[in-house]
Amino acid sequence: MYVDQASKQQLQAALADLESQYARFQAAKLSLDLTRGKPNSAQLDLSNRLDGILDGQYKGADGTDSRNYGGLDGQPEAKALFCQMLGVKPEETLIGGNASLTLMFQTLNYAHNFGVRGAASAWNKEGKIKFLCPVPGYDRHFGICEELGIEMIPVAMDDNGPDMDQVEALVKADKLIKGIWCVPRFSNPSGIVYSDQVVERIAKLAKIAGPNFRIMWDNAYCIHAFHDDAQPLANVMDLARKHGTEDSLLIFGSTSKITFAGAGLAFMGASVENLKHFKKHLGIITIGPDKVNQLRHVKFFGDHAGLLDHMRKHAELLKPRFDAVIEHLDKGLKNTDMGNWTVPEGGYFVSFDSRSGLAKEIVRLADAVGVKLTPAGATFPYGKDPADRNIRLAPSFPTLADINKAMEVFVVCVQLASVRQKLAA
Amino acid sequence: MYVDQASKQQLQAALADLESQYARFQAAKLSLDLTRGKPNSAQLDLSNRLDGILDGQYKGADGTDSRNYGGLDGQPEAKALFCQMLGVKPEETLIGGNASLTLMFQTLNYAHNFGVRGAASAWNKEGKIKFLCPVPGYDRHFGICEELGIEMIPVAMDDNGPDMDQVEALVKADKLIKGIWCVPRFSNPSGIVYSDQVVERIAKLAKIAGPNFRIMWDNAYCIHAFHDDAQPLANVMDLARKHGTEDSLLIFGSTSKITFAGAGLAFMGASVENLKHFKKHLGIITIGPDKVNQLRHVKFFGDHAGLLDHMRKHAELLKPRFDAVIEHLDKGLKNTDMGNWTVPEGGYFVSFDSRSGLAKEIVRLADAVGVKLTPAGATFPYGKDPADRNIRLAPSFPTLADINKAMEVFVVCVQLASVRQKLAA
Repeated sequence: MYVDQASKQQLQAALADLESQYARFQAAKLSLDLTRGKPNSAQLDLSNRLDGILDGQYKGADGTDSRNYGGLDGQPEAKALFCQMLGVKPEETLIGGNASLTLMFQTLNYAHNFGVRGAASAWNKEGKIKFLCPVPGYDRHFGICEELGIEMIPVAMDDNGPDMDQVEALVKADKLIKGIWCVPRFSNPSGIVYSDQVVERIAKLAKIAGPNFRIMWDNAYCIHAFHDDAQPLANVMDLARKHGTEDSLLIFGSTSKITFAGAGLAFMGASVENLKHFKKHLGIITIGPDKVNQLRHVKFFGDHAGLLDHMRKHAELLKPRFDAVIEHLDKGLKNTDMGNWTVPEGGYFVSFDSRSGLAKEIVRLADAVGVKLTPAGATFPYGKDPADRNIRLAPSFPTLADINKAMEVFVVCVQLASVRQKLAA
Repeated sequence: MYVDQASKQQLQAALADLESQYARFQAAKLSLDLTRGKPNSAQLDLSNRLDGILDGQYKGADGTDSRNYGGLDGQPEAKALFCQMLGVKPEETLIGGNASLTLMFQTLNYAHNFGVRGAASAWNKEGKIKFLCPVPGYDRHFGICEELGIEMIPVAMDDNGPDMDQVEALVKADKLIKGIWCVPRFSNPSGIVYSDQVVERIAKLAKIAGPNFRIMWDNAYCIHAFHDDAQPLANVMDLARKHGTEDSLLIFGSTSKITFAGAGLAFMGASVENLKHFKKHLGIITIGPDKVNQLRHVKFFGDHAGLLDHMRKHAELLKPRFDAVIEHLDKGLKNTDMGNWTVPEGGYFVSFDSRSGLAKEIVRLADAVGVKLTPAGATFPYGKDPADRNIRLAPSFPTLADINKAMEVFVVCVQLASVRQKLAA
């Protein structure tokens, strides 16, 4: 049904039906959760060999005792393996602790307060600086900007990535814009992959923005495809090298959604010069990362091909969950004017756009019958979705049965909110 | 020999003898290192069971899947175990990653830039704030202050801890003094243990200094005694509770020198209110610590008694190394006016004070014959020991044979520098 084309009688009949369905959900006392991109326990089981895998062999390939202090930027064999995931050279790689979010905060905190190239280049010396935030985006990126007092400017996205005309125009017009957040492959939450042309235009941004500009390239889902022929992503570091803009790039990745979400490894890829400056500050707060866990991961995967094999096992567990979400959306909302959604080929999210002004209401309706959704607005800076449309669906953690139940509820909530809105108009 | 009482002939005879000994060291092409407080590999071997100890049991006692995201302040069973080491309640405990240094930086960074109780209380709003640094102290503490632009004021120490008359007078006179660094048991580097009276006076400091004052209580060596009857330390949190000053206390500890130096756990003990504010900021940069490693540690120790048993094994490995250092100092420098040193009952360091103006020269002499010592001055803020006297000796890592060789060199370098200084006077 297209609500905009339906008669009042049709809408009222639909409303009665939807309200009775909704009442049945209420009676069912559900407790379902589609909020966060957490791996499910079958995914975690794939890496259970990690604990104990070293079998007493705590020495690195270069003789380093991984148990002891040292190795600020990580074990060489971990760099050699995971640099391939980041698309950079081993010497452009740093292997950290269990959270890439921490590396992102650190790079921005250092740039903001201590400078990207010494104190004189500190962003906070230039005034209240700004960051571009393609929307919908990742709430934890926005949280870092808020914490540091960096003003966020939303930028539109389409199926190819951020609107680069808008991005370039903004950067050209305002020298206080010091960076941009990007989740370039299977973007959080839209699931889209940046096109080659968009990647190259981003890689060149520093030519407009100047040497202190930084691209926060959070490639969290770089190898998290549901099938082998999913859309690939251009290598941003290669493109930056071509344009002489390597220093503008800060690339992040992790094994959080590959091995153990809370006990994996986080990485950073950056120019040797950027890493040198980063390590000067990093060395103030730590003597080094958990190198034992780095050796575990290297032994577990063996090589990059082993890593990709492992990702295929994740895909087997994730794909049916995403298929279920899309099936429910197709069945209940395709060929209606009640919503649009993405059909991702990888990553952790489906992004749903309702009719304007309904996202909060849909989340409220679902919550009231025991289905938790990511708060509406969370995918926008300051939690404010101006059109109140975007809802992030995260189906990785629940069982297939729970996803089916939750999506049944979700579709009815969307329909109910849409019909009510139209009747009230 | 007392160089101040020796005749010129005696000094010249000694010089000739010392120079020939020194020449023999030169010829020996040594490569020895007494610089950093790293556990030796036999110590690390004590914890080799850690990897694999979980045997596939990744669930916490409360059912938490340690492999997944979450648990910002750590696993409950880890809090219950390690709070005893910190001398606080479980709810006053946070279990972090592998570096207590990181927790220390974070608390100070937050206090300085974001405030101890919201933005209005940020230290940087009051101007260039200051920290008291009992000397000799730990260079990495001083590094954090330098990084944050916090001015450091050295404070004298004696066998009972910091000179509290001086501390109280300074705090009373200058409201920009916002904190003090303390390593209260087996202090780095002096090895002394703060007396009960000193601990209580520190616990009460906030009554003079005001509510934003923070005591950085780095209890890194709290259970690192060489024998069971080593001098105990008063419980600073109990004393703060007695005086209503709990919020001024930030207590730190770790298993860095208990299990694996680079792959252990770091802890913080603080009032529930302090932890609440800390976690607000911590939640911006991480979803949680490596809980798998926390479960490993809990299973490894079992309980606090198990932890103390484990420390006795460390003592067996460390005590002979410290005994060797002291024997060499006794043999070569006792009953002379060429130096004073501490005889610690635990910890990782022996602190040596040469005649004024000679520490740098002694370190240079040793280095020139292949014996690396901690740079002179490192134990003072800004690397500046005003009397150029203090040298930190760290005998945990080398073998006993290497310690004996290195200390033989050290003693000769002290004697040589002392005699030369006297002859040149």
